[in-house]
Formats: sequence, C-alpha cells, structure tokens
Amino acid sequence: MANEERPVEKQGIYSGKILTLEKWTVELPNGKQALREIVHHKGASAVVPVDERLRVPMVRQYRVAMGREMLEIPAGKMETLGEDPFDCAQRELAEETGLRASQWTYFGPYVASPGYCDEVVHLYMARGLTAGDTHLDEDEFLSVEWIPLSELLQQVMAGKIHDGKTMAALLLAGRALGL
Amino acid sequence: MANEERPVEKQGIYSGKILTLEKWTVELPNGKQALREIVHHKGASAVVPVDERLRVPMVRQYRVAMGREMLEIPAGKMETLGEDPFDCAQRELAEETGLRASQWTYFGPYVASPGYCDEVVHLYMARGLTAGDTHLDEDEFLSVEWIPLSELLQQVMAGKIHDGKTMAALLLAGRALGL
Repeated sequence: MANEERPVEKQGIYSGKILTLEKWTVELPNGKQALREIVHHKGASAVVPVDERLRVPMVRQYRVAMGREMLEIPAGKMETLGEDPFDCAQRELAEETGLRASQWTYFGPYVASPGYCDEVVHLYMARGLTAGDTHLDEDEFLSVEWIPLSELLQQVMAGKIHDGKTMAALLLAGRALGL
Repeated sequence: MANEERPVEKQGIYSGKILTLEKWTVELPNGKQALREIVHHKGASAVVPVDERLRVPMVRQYRVAMGREMLEIPAGKMETLGEDPFDCAQRELAEETGLRASQWTYFGPYVASPGYCDEVVHLYMARGLTAGDTHLDEDEFLSVEWIPLSELLQQVMAGKIHDGKTMAALLLAGRALGL
C-alpha cells in the first residue's frame, strides 16, 4: 500500500486493566520517521435491542471520563482478547437489561478512534426479546429506560445523543427497519 | 446524580503528543473505590462534504493502530484544547480535500469511547462546495475518492465501512438529505 506506515520500534508505556499504551516509531512513505501513540483495547460488543412495539431499552450510566451521565445502548467489553463478539453481545445484553433475544442481526465492526486506538466495537441488533433477570457486576451502576426507536432517531438527528456507537447503531437499526 | 462516580485521586501516567493518560481512583455510589484509566484527547472535527451530484470526497489513509488502510470522511484533531470546532472543520476540509463550503450543518458532538476517553468529535455536513488547493501536512499521506452518498450508505449497511465517526456522519447525512 502506497500510504503504509511501517512500525520500526515499539516501546511499552503502560499496561493496565482495560488498556495498554505504547509509543511506536514508524517509517513514513517518504522514508522519514514519526512517533505514534497507540492505545490497545480488547474491544467490545454493543446491541440495539428492539421490541415488538419498536422500543429500545437504553442504558443511562455515569461516565467519569466525560464527567456526566450518558444515554447508550447496552454494551460491554470483551472478557478476553479474541472472545467471540456474539458471546459478548449476548452476555452484555443479559447483564445490563435482563433480556434474551431470538433474532440477531450483525451490523459489522465499528472502530472507535482509528487515529490512535485499535478498539473495535461489534454492533448488533437484537429482536425477539424475552425478559429475564439482570446480572450487573457488583460495581456497575446504571438504569434502563425504554424509549421508542423513532424518538431516539429524532434525538440523534437533533444532536442530543452523543455516544458514538449508540449514534451509529441506532441509525443502522432505523435504516434496517425502515424508520 | 444517583449513579455518579466521584474522582478522589488522579495520577498522571503519560503526557504525550496527542494524548494524556491518567489513573483515577473514584468513589462509587456504594461508597467503594475503583480504578479508572482515563485517556485525555483534545478532540477533533469531521465533515461529510456532499456535492451537487450527491457525491462525497472520502479519504483513504493508512491507520497504523489498525494495521490497514481505512476509508473515512475528512477529519482532523483540534490544534489546541478549546479550538472552535467549526474552525477545525473548515481547516481540515481544506487541508485534506482542497474544498471550501458555503453551507454547513452541525450534527452535534460524537463521543468516541466514553468508557475511558474524553475525545469528542464534532460532526458536520458541508454543501455548496468549491475546489481549491490541498495543504496536507508534510508527513500526511492520503488519497481522496469521490463516491456517491447512496453507495456509501449501502456500504455502511453492509458492514463495509468501519470508522465510527464516518459511519455515524454518513448515516446522519443520508437521513438529513432523505437518501
């Protein structure tokens, strides 16, 4: 590839609980070298569950990095690097909302911030929902609100829903369902 | 807010060129403490330019964090924390494509990865395009491809476009333009 950057050195900076940071020296197409800060992340799955009345159970949770609550679709990180994204999607849907789903649509991978991070979020739509118990992690605090998909799409168009994976997945679901 | 996490200690880990990493100790709603790894990023603007024939100039560039080329809308980082997102959007559009635009629509902020990062990308649609010169940074390598928005929307629905801001912005533009 004409525009390829070739890593020539990788230096570990930090290895933590949910992310790893490295400093890479890369060789540019013009032969010069440049520095790249690279965040590694195990990835995640995210699900738009849509019930028979075309309502979506949205998750409201506090995001300390943003200093505020955000309204998001059910989602969660892979437990291990290489976990099956569909297993992760089913688990997170059940943990956060108590729901099981009989029909799944895979929308594809969503790359959160390709300029410096390798995080991939696998996006799904889930239908054929049945209720069960939630199984929140002991230290997980969130509330679930059922909102019509048509109303959520209006909120996305009005710039009122800010989580990127949620914006993309709601718009994908709206288009897939002709809303 | 009932679900709020309160930072009680912040430890600097790394301060670099495009990002800063901190380790925060937070107090959870149940009084327990937890660790949060937080990436700070200055933010960015991204633009869907749409010409009179409803074509979009897409940017193909190598993303070393992903190890491959990606097809994205024109976008770029804020030069300083607190730069006007509209200034950033106009600059990046001109630098990467040479285009100026007379009509701008602001779609709103897009949060790339709220679980650990404060990066906000401001999403715009630009119409009334006129051509000028590109002004790529010396070490920036990319190519521009004009693709019909209707074809891009099909690619997004088929899971073939993976950059998150690009997925969201193309779907927003499609919906805004009735495509």
